[in-house]
Amino acid sequence: MTHVPITGGVCAPQGFLASGISAGLKRTGNPDLALVVSISPATVAGVFTRNNVCAAPVKVSRARLEAGTGRAVVINSGGANACTGAQGLSDAEEMTRSAGAALGIPAADVLVCSTGLIGVHLPMDKVKAGIETAASSLGVDDELAARAIMTTDTVPKLAAVASPDGWRVGGIAKGAGMISPNMGTMLAVVTTDAGVDRDFLQAALGRVADRTFNSITIDGDTSTNDTLLVFANGASGITPSPDDFEAALLAVCDSLSRQMVADGEGVTKFVTVRVTGAADHAGAVTAARAIAESTLVKTALFGEDANWGRVASAVGNSGALARFDGLTISIAGVAVLTEGTPEGAHAIDAARAAMAANEITIECDLGVGDARADILTSDLTPDYVNLNAEYEL
Amino acid sequence: MTHVPITGGVCAPQGFLASGISAGLKRTGNPDLALVVSISPATVAGVFTRNNVCAAPVKVSRARLEAGTGRAVVINSGGANACTGAQGLSDAEEMTRSAGAALGIPAADVLVCSTGLIGVHLPMDKVKAGIETAASSLGVDDELAARAIMTTDTVPKLAAVASPDGWRVGGIAKGAGMISPNMGTMLAVVTTDAGVDRDFLQAALGRVADRTFNSITIDGDTSTNDTLLVFANGASGITPSPDDFEAALLAVCDSLSRQMVADGEGVTKFVTVRVTGAADHAGAVTAARAIAESTLVKTALFGEDANWGRVASAVGNSGALARFDGLTISIAGVAVLTEGTPEGAHAIDAARAAMAANEITIECDLGVGDARADILTSDLTPDYVNLNAEYEL
Repeated sequence: MTHVPITGGVCAPQGFLASGISAGLKRTGNPDLALVVSISPATVAGVFTRNNVCAAPVKVSRARLEAGTGRAVVINSGGANACTGAQGLSDAEEMTRSAGAALGIPAADVLVCSTGLIGVHLPMDKVKAGIETAASSLGVDDELAARAIMTTDTVPKLAAVASPDGWRVGGIAKGAGMISPNMGTMLAVVTTDAGVDRDFLQAALGRVADRTFNSITIDGDTSTNDTLLVFANGASGITPSPDDFEAALLAVCDSLSRQMVADGEGVTKFVTVRVTGAADHAGAVTAARAIAESTLVKTALFGEDANWGRVASAVGNSGALARFDGLTISIAGVAVLTEGTPEGAHAIDAARAAMAANEITIECDLGVGDARADILTSDLTPDYVNLNAEYEL
Repeated sequence: MTHVPITGGVCAPQGFLASGISAGLKRTGNPDLALVVSISPATVAGVFTRNNVCAAPVKVSRARLEAGTGRAVVINSGGANACTGAQGLSDAEEMTRSAGAALGIPAADVLVCSTGLIGVHLPMDKVKAGIETAASSLGVDDELAARAIMTTDTVPKLAAVASPDGWRVGGIAKGAGMISPNMGTMLAVVTTDAGVDRDFLQAALGRVADRTFNSITIDGDTSTNDTLLVFANGASGITPSPDDFEAALLAVCDSLSRQMVADGEGVTKFVTVRVTGAADHAGAVTAARAIAESTLVKTALFGEDANWGRVASAVGNSGALARFDGLTISIAGVAVLTEGTPEGAHAIDAARAAMAANEITIECDLGVGDARADILTSDLTPDYVNLNAEYEL
């Protein structure tokens, strides 16, 4: 059966509660502490940052995840708890103990995420008081939780789908490390009331992450705190087919990751870089990522300049195998280079006009095979530079 | 004997002439065609772009270089002659034939460089007429040649040194592909009247390039046209010791590469990223380059924000081996992180104040060995974005 989009986030599936409150971690007084809780034990899977400098909460959650089950995750914004040494590790563990005590469950069943500035210790008195408040505020308004994990995000990010069979998948997320990089974090929590085998859940999450969160890039920086968690509590009483479930998980993660790109700092263009004709999938991803991360391509996108030479140069630098003298490139649906032959000034003018749209696709065929890959990205704007020139919480 | 800096560029050594004229390739009417000529046969060495999409003049010059000798190089701005197919290759060869005819030397003794927009054919009538004019304008004013190869550069770049023994090394250059990337080209021509063995010249040039032009980065994009050539005509009658010569070559290339960074598009900060304590030299370079190319580090430099968390995160992403929980970082001479322990708010404030300087050093000790590397870079500014959002010649 095909799932359908519905409103809501982590509380769309049965048996999940959430809250978002202000613990006083942000100078602004905005919400900064969230809880997502399953009313019954759930299987849990996770994907974490590959940055070798990883935050204390990542270390704690990764260790907790080995059990394969869990009940809750506590998330704070206003401080990444990264590069904080032994004290930071102790603080992250203390957050799980406090949440466990407030919820009446073992600390071992609580995961933890943090987002914010690197290198600053969390004010644990405020954090612990906030956890008490959050535990006593649990409800089904998951937008409050989505707001409490925001940093430079301008809108909360929620997505959910329902299967006609009676199970659901929902999620909340905040800007990717690649989007709100000063804060250094992409966080996402996904829930489902479907019954899902633990090993399959982890494997499916890895595949879905590669096709969604790992296929977006704003500035090429992977944060110290990136975390994607999924809780499956089986509250619907239904165990969907693996394919059905993975498709629904993909839909929710795809929506959340697209919301991240659209809400990128200073972004004016939502860009799909599509590489085709690659020798293999890895080559397609390598070339697409090189195009998407080229400062020159990104500034040209901002300027609505159909500068395909920068696309070709990025492919040449990427290390991907390609017929370098026979590339085919189109920008915003207009062919500008065909098997190495420029289409000329009329095509450039037509492409420039088409680049006025907010959503733009850059396609590049490498001419050496059948593999393909999409990477979602954005333009690079003066606003992005100014936003990141000095960020204070 | 120690060499000393002198004024001038490629005409500082004996037996070299140069010219720079306007052939009408730039809409502005600014000079756009240069010749550098040795009055006698010279040994020649070269280093070229590693971009797999490389321009026609790079292909032609690389082939010419195999002979190991040459007399002249013709350089145009106003068009990169890259991604221009068979016609582009024929045009580049035609440029060497025209220059050879005008100078009365074989085309095989002429090298060629181009810089400008990718994907546009050169107007060969103008180019050939310009070569005639340039050949009849040869003199010892090498600043005209340095101006004729400029694209987005704001100042011409020349450097020269003299040995007390009576030989000299001089050079001219234009902005690195990494600095004026829309134009996609870093070009440099170095001359010497010392007698230098051809194999040693090529080997020394490779070593010097790694320490100078290959150790600067503005935006991480390597262009399709990057070319560094050195001509040694022996006109001084002196054959210096290899160490003496390489030191002088290094001094000239170091000066030219620093001039490129200082004249980077929109640049307000000249930044040295110094990585120490690496396991090996490759690791030091990898980490230093990751820091220097991080969009977040570069925007923080523009904002004079001592955000060391971004430096640590860049190291974590680089793949270099490091004691990730025990990094030591200083910014603008102020220690902000010592073996993993933050120095606190006072240090951050002191570092911010020190970052008001135009020249800033970021130092990061990886804590795992004795290897070190410097990479020169700049900040990333709104002016850079605006300059690159739409570039027209």
